[in-house]
Amino acid sequence: MTFATKILQNTTRKVIDKYPLYVPKSGTFPKGFQVGSIASGVKKNNALDLGIIINTNKSRPSSAAAVFTTNKFKAAPVLTSKNVLDSTNGVAINAIVVNSGCANSVTGELGMQDAKEMIDIVNEQLGDKTSPSTLVMSTGVIGQRLQMNKISEGIKKIFQENKFGSDFTSWLNISKSICTTDTFPKLVTSKFKLLNGKEYTLTGLAKGAGMICPNMATLLGFIVTDLPIESKTLQKMLRHSTSRSFNCISVDGDMSTNDTICMIANGAVDTPEINENSQEFKQVQDQVTEFAQRLAQLVVRDGEGSTKFVTVNVKNSYSFEDAKIIAESISNSMLVKTALYGQDANWGRILCAIGYAKLNDLKSLNVDKINVSFIATDNSEPRELKLIVNGVPQLNIDEERASEILALNDLEVLVNLGTGKEEAQFWTCDLSHEYVTINGDYRS
Amino acid sequence: MTFATKILQNTTRKVIDKYPLYVPKSGTFPKGFQVGSIASGVKKNNALDLGIIINTNKSRPSSAAAVFTTNKFKAAPVLTSKNVLDSTNGVAINAIVVNSGCANSVTGELGMQDAKEMIDIVNEQLGDKTSPSTLVMSTGVIGQRLQMNKISEGIKKIFQENKFGSDFTSWLNISKSICTTDTFPKLVTSKFKLLNGKEYTLTGLAKGAGMICPNMATLLGFIVTDLPIESKTLQKMLRHSTSRSFNCISVDGDMSTNDTICMIANGAVDTPEINENSQEFKQVQDQVTEFAQRLAQLVVRDGEGSTKFVTVNVKNSYSFEDAKIIAESISNSMLVKTALYGQDANWGRILCAIGYAKLNDLKSLNVDKINVSFIATDNSEPRELKLIVNGVPQLNIDEERASEILALNDLEVLVNLGTGKEEAQFWTCDLSHEYVTINGDYRS
Repeated sequence: MTFATKILQNTTRKVIDKYPLYVPKSGTFPKGFQVGSIASGVKKNNALDLGIIINTNKSRPSSAAAVFTTNKFKAAPVLTSKNVLDSTNGVAINAIVVNSGCANSVTGELGMQDAKEMIDIVNEQLGDKTSPSTLVMSTGVIGQRLQMNKISEGIKKIFQENKFGSDFTSWLNISKSICTTDTFPKLVTSKFKLLNGKEYTLTGLAKGAGMICPNMATLLGFIVTDLPIESKTLQKMLRHSTSRSFNCISVDGDMSTNDTICMIANGAVDTPEINENSQEFKQVQDQVTEFAQRLAQLVVRDGEGSTKFVTVNVKNSYSFEDAKIIAESISNSMLVKTALYGQDANWGRILCAIGYAKLNDLKSLNVDKINVSFIATDNSEPRELKLIVNGVPQLNIDEERASEILALNDLEVLVNLGTGKEEAQFWTCDLSHEYVTINGDYRS
Repeated sequence: MTFATKILQNTTRKVIDKYPLYVPKSGTFPKGFQVGSIASGVKKNNALDLGIIINTNKSRPSSAAAVFTTNKFKAAPVLTSKNVLDSTNGVAINAIVVNSGCANSVTGELGMQDAKEMIDIVNEQLGDKTSPSTLVMSTGVIGQRLQMNKISEGIKKIFQENKFGSDFTSWLNISKSICTTDTFPKLVTSKFKLLNGKEYTLTGLAKGAGMICPNMATLLGFIVTDLPIESKTLQKMLRHSTSRSFNCISVDGDMSTNDTICMIANGAVDTPEINENSQEFKQVQDQVTEFAQRLAQLVVRDGEGSTKFVTVNVKNSYSFEDAKIIAESISNSMLVKTALYGQDANWGRILCAIGYAKLNDLKSLNVDKINVSFIATDNSEPRELKLIVNGVPQLNIDEERASEILALNDLEVLVNLGTGKEEAQFWTCDLSHEYVTINGDYRS
């Protein structure tokens, strides 16, 4: 039995309960935002399925930005929210309304009317009847119309019974209200200081990696901050951050009709607005990117049936684009994903996925310069297990150490292309029996 | 429970024994070819692992052509055979030697020497020491060198003990000798007549859809015929046929370092050579394409752990390329494949895969013109089960009929784009628990 065929026989590969690991128990949240959620009745079992985020800061207009799915079939709320952002240039958006249980996708003109109606009801409740100041998102079953009577009543109840709050429970509840088959709600909050010494807060919620019958995974992400950011700058920054976070994750490589990441900056912390020329621009962009990565990684951690969280790190590439294409190719390979599930140090499958990646520039890949390693992400030594060195497979590898690293829930695949100085990361999970069960077996 | 959530609970989805279904029990073969195979000892259990096809027709020089993997990591036999074809222009190739058990891939300069040596030994045995008249292929474990002592001895034995034959058993044995984890050998033979009234024969062998640790699937295909075809015409014809057969199949979407389809036409049936200007050119090309499709489809039928054989038929497209890209996107989608395994008429996942296909031309897709159906491939009626009509999901579908069609081992997904007149087909299989077991579980 060679090294490469070695798989740990006696390790458990059970899907663990992720809720206690990844859901916070407290948090502080950005100034000037209130959130409310309710069980509208669209979802069964009286589960939370409708949420609203409102901006209460009136000292200056907020800025909003969004990145939408590139799927050619875009759901009604995607098209509707895009219209709102286009017509307002992302200025003075004061609410986001989101429902789960029904994606309002492939619903034609009536679906567009429903999405618009959700916005109108929120605007009416906000006393903001004239301006289109609300964004709308939906996730859940596709091809079915929204039960607008329940949605409408739910929205009104949130306002009329004042279910809004800014405490931890309110934020946790709204993060629950956007879940579909997620096994845990995804809520992240983080404080940061700029050079001016002032403290700001970023809070984000996400859902994803869950498919709800008869549907595909939908990825939704909402980020809010009390830092003032100019709206065009915010759009640019969110695009940059998304291309390095939510667009660098792979569960099954499928992209939905509803995928949306949106962000509101309300400037409730009263400091000068950040724009592209600000001294703090780069710091803020890095902060938002790192924050978006934390949120996106939670989606991978909740990958259906997954037992491993794997960082694919492609370094020293001739171009960033090709580093990302290679990282994506490895991350989406069914053979790599099953090998990871099997705890098999299968460098052949990794090399194969690198080799068929459709690169933009041949200079990015040189067969004789490539290095591939597994990296332990705990503190054990040696951290690096070299599989391929300068294009040559290493045949005498420490099998015991290989077994230890591959048994970890978190690990890293490091690819050093040796062709330049650019790098990209992707985050992926393994492909398990449980994935097939969730997506192929009987669902009612 | 809506239609779309309906899955048959009580149907078996066991992996069936495919050998008796797809392996012929007799056959007649092209004139002027002899084949021999042997257990060289590279594979354990005394299994056949080395085969040679020789052209014995001396009345005119043969023509050969090949289509190789586009993976950037090409195995030594791929590079070596490519050199042979380049230096001979595909003229007078008289043998193909192929081994299984070791892919001679990622083996560097020494691997190149080994591949060359395999050719040299065959040429020597053929008494053909000067010309590089032999092609070489390998499949199996990567990153390991060939055991050249066993290979060398095996090749000599095939010649010295005259293990060549042109009967059914000889052809069946060589098709067995190229298998790795295939569950059945893939051998197809077919006669056809041209306008001249003469009869010709096509015979093909293939292996694929099996991964051997620590490896990826390798696809090998060999086609021989006694029709005379000019070598440049043969190369063009094989490329055309491969792009409509072996390049239109999906098991897991991964492409190996060794994938090769090659063809030899020896002209043992003494009629004028076919070239691009021949009256019969189109007929021959269609014949070869259809034949290559039959062979390629066997690879999908042997898809690891698969329980279903699914034809994805994209019709009425603005362009052939985009029809193929859409067919491929559907065929590779893990969500579509698990839904097929689950016998779930999940039009949402199909639509999703169409929507994220990276098309060349926006004219190919019009959201309001798309039709998606399942088609029964047995003779039961009604054959067509409409899921989406002109972009509108059909919510009142005959559930009983849906269950019947989805329970079939063979079925068709029909996508009518309604944007043009081009069409493309892909053949795919489902993604099962068994696939994860084969590729993720313990292997020794």
